[in-house]
Amino acid sequence: MPHIKLPEGVPGILGPMVFSPATAKPMNELAEVLLRAPNTLEPWEREMIATYVSYENECHFCHTVHGATAAHHLGGNEELVNEVRRNFEASPISDKLKALLAIAGKVQKGGKHVTTEDVEKARQHGATDKEIHDTVLIAAAFCMFNRYVDGLATWAPQNDPAGYRESGKRLAEKGYGYSTGLLSQLPSGIL
Amino acid sequence: MPHIKLPEGVPGILGPMVFSPATAKPMNELAEVLLRAPNTLEPWEREMIATYVSYENECHFCHTVHGATAAHHLGGNEELVNEVRRNFEASPISDKLKALLAIAGKVQKGGKHVTTEDVEKARQHGATDKEIHDTVLIAAAFCMFNRYVDGLATWAPQNDPAGYRESGKRLAEKGYGYSTGLLSQLPSGIL
Repeated sequence: MPHIKLPEGVPGILGPMVFSPATAKPMNELAEVLLRAPNTLEPWEREMIATYVSYENECHFCHTVHGATAAHHLGGNEELVNEVRRNFEASPISDKLKALLAIAGKVQKGGKHVTTEDVEKARQHGATDKEIHDTVLIAAAFCMFNRYVDGLATWAPQNDPAGYRESGKRLAEKGYGYSTGLLSQLPSGIL
Repeated sequence: MPHIKLPEGVPGILGPMVFSPATAKPMNELAEVLLRAPNTLEPWEREMIATYVSYENECHFCHTVHGATAAHHLGGNEELVNEVRRNFEASPISDKLKALLAIAGKVQKGGKHVTTEDVEKARQHGATDKEIHDTVLIAAAFCMFNRYVDGLATWAPQNDPAGYRESGKRLAEKGYGYSTGLLSQLPSGIL
């Protein structure tokens, strides 16, 4: 049961976002810029960084819904998302993305864990300053989102792949700004 | 040296915010709502939560500047800020704020660390659902801000109490939205 009174049946971060629209707005704006604005990192790559950090933080709602969003961007390739979650070093992604995921994993533990060598390795594989910046901030932002979701003990379906797929499709196609608009209509069965 | 090229002499989070104005805007909006909007928690209490979480994350820039902001709100009572950093349980603050700081400390470790007992204790001392919500989100947000600052290895003065006091005064009196406007004028010696 959530630690505070939240609308029933509204999963994950959407419950506290309905509770607090004034903070939901800038949080969704930040997610929109980080994950969907024009960028040399593809949307699926940025969603993969979000998924990986959320998985390391053991945030079920976040890693499942952002994994579904990454998979939707990839034409439904859920297997690749699972491979990255399990062991990204062994997964069939670029060396650049592997180096950025390594940086994201360090940020998840704490900012000071990121070393010059981690950043140098990403650069050797072609990462730009903006890509390194965005990776650090995506990882940092999901350390916030994950703590918001779990620090309030929000509810989320444990086994509803179809529901998460639907959310992933909505986030991939319509984005996070659209979620802000949806909040005023909740609760209405949205996952 | 910072991990990416940032404007020289611009301390802490302001460097990456100059680098990336599109993400700085929602981040400052979030800080403004959380720390300065009308609330039953005083601004100094919210800045104290931010300071304590940043101190636990060992983020020198953040805990120093938000500590200075809390102190400015308190008419310059830096000793109280130091007492809270060192051992808030023994400090002369309300039992409600102690219980909220305990929740914030759990969020700093990870969202799942917050227990029903932690929340119940805060409620017994008069905390409302909104105060509990805001405490969790302030703590979560500073887990982001701290990682952003340290994950990019930003520069900050190690020993410049006057400079930090000046920043604390500016943040307490003019707020975080004002910082967004300042970013376009940087670098210009602002701490």
